[in-house]
Amino acid sequence: MRLVRYGEMGQEKPGVMDEAGQIRDLSKLFSDITPDVFDDISAINPADFPVINGTPRYGVPFRGINKIICIGLNYHDHAAETGKDVPSEPIVFMKATSALNGPYDPIRIPRGSQKSDWEVELGVVIGKDTKYVSEENALDHVFGYTLINDVSERHFQAERGGQWTKGKSCDTFAPVGPWLVTADEIADPQDLKLTTKVNDQIMQNGSTADMIFKVAHIVSYLSQMMRLEPGDIIATGTPAGVAAGIRPPQFLKPGDRLELNIDGLGTQRSVIDADS
Amino acid sequence: MRLVRYGEMGQEKPGVMDEAGQIRDLSKLFSDITPDVFDDISAINPADFPVINGTPRYGVPFRGINKIICIGLNYHDHAAETGKDVPSEPIVFMKATSALNGPYDPIRIPRGSQKSDWEVELGVVIGKDTKYVSEENALDHVFGYTLINDVSERHFQAERGGQWTKGKSCDTFAPVGPWLVTADEIADPQDLKLTTKVNDQIMQNGSTADMIFKVAHIVSYLSQMMRLEPGDIIATGTPAGVAAGIRPPQFLKPGDRLELNIDGLGTQRSVIDADS
Repeated sequence: MRLVRYGEMGQEKPGVMDEAGQIRDLSKLFSDITPDVFDDISAINPADFPVINGTPRYGVPFRGINKIICIGLNYHDHAAETGKDVPSEPIVFMKATSALNGPYDPIRIPRGSQKSDWEVELGVVIGKDTKYVSEENALDHVFGYTLINDVSERHFQAERGGQWTKGKSCDTFAPVGPWLVTADEIADPQDLKLTTKVNDQIMQNGSTADMIFKVAHIVSYLSQMMRLEPGDIIATGTPAGVAAGIRPPQFLKPGDRLELNIDGLGTQRSVIDADS
Repeated sequence: MRLVRYGEMGQEKPGVMDEAGQIRDLSKLFSDITPDVFDDISAINPADFPVINGTPRYGVPFRGINKIICIGLNYHDHAAETGKDVPSEPIVFMKATSALNGPYDPIRIPRGSQKSDWEVELGVVIGKDTKYVSEENALDHVFGYTLINDVSERHFQAERGGQWTKGKSCDTFAPVGPWLVTADEIADPQDLKLTTKVNDQIMQNGSTADMIFKVAHIVSYLSQMMRLEPGDIIATGTPAGVAAGIRPPQFLKPGDRLELNIDGLGTQRSVIDADS
């Protein structure tokens, strides 16, 4: 199932993509796509619901996201391009939920930004309360997967003291979607190709096979430290090819066009804008 | 106004403390204390509402907390005890909202914890959408203040790779309250005494006058990077006297009793327990 929310910002309706790539309207069944309906939604048949007219905006594909937990330096090739050692345990940080952004909405570079950058990432969406889960059972706690761009301001992140949060939490810096894809549609989360194009040029071209810590390990690891709740997103790190890794770096500027894709999770397109 | 939520976990009702220290029940007026009612709540007179019977549990004093943003090493004396330099800009990290805990509920040390520690902190509660606010206008965006214990697992935080989030986000590691105190009751947020007692012994005894970055500066600073939303809590750092600063360190163990106080914001009491 490929779940979506469509419509104007703040007025999105629940939907599901059918096999022909049309949105079917689920609003007769659910008022919105939230973790409360995760259990029930798996039983529906998209063909039973009406095709919508027109080409609406897509929103973040579900609501009720309490945490965006991110894993840093989790691809061998990305760790190498940053010049840092391969971590011995997952590096964990948080992205503010106020940074959430629709999959085709503009990304707004904050005032004073010098080094805004892209990061295509596999987003893991938690399906049930998860605490002290074993690696063996961890994937049973995953409801689905989505594409998340962990947009990062490197100057804020690394050159202004302390922790990374500052450069990760700017408004619009967490575009999610277009789809929330249920786990049954992803045969192997460790065998997905991820790409980023900037102005039509391929910049990132990796595979989740290159992850240092795999999805099951990450879910288990995090659950030893904190309760994972339904709707939490775990952004599992990015492969090589970010702006900061290019010599000289090529950071984002207003007017740039980003196109991110992950096998089975769809394509996200964002135009870069300056924050007003 | 000193706002509270009282009752069993998950079933709290809204209340307000009267001058005699009794809880008055606000549930005829509001279903809960959330940012939606911040504007209206300032106009009430506690004496107009019924005194409740009995001595209920206190919950986190408001709901709808999307972010807990923390400032690290923000007191001169605490920076000195850690042996670190005074930061040139605020150090910013996040605490998971799943760590929220009532002001008298047990704090549960997670499995594998070696170094759980206390941190009494002035919590700033945002009252309206805040972006790019000047330092001069920043306090107009503060709805009120509360006491927050930024409980920290130092081994997870600093000895297991990467960012601090791991040691800050364990379940029950964010006790808040007992009260949400409206800003009009706090004459000067930079002149408040903060104390922590562990098993009746004074361990922290500081003043918000010792903050490196003041509340107005922090609110303005954060708003340059991310939107602050009504209900967000900013934990503004802790004075000297944490367990990790003692030689040798004296970390928390099951059965220990914590008592935290800030002038005007009440007293928080927690017993330490082991997570099951």
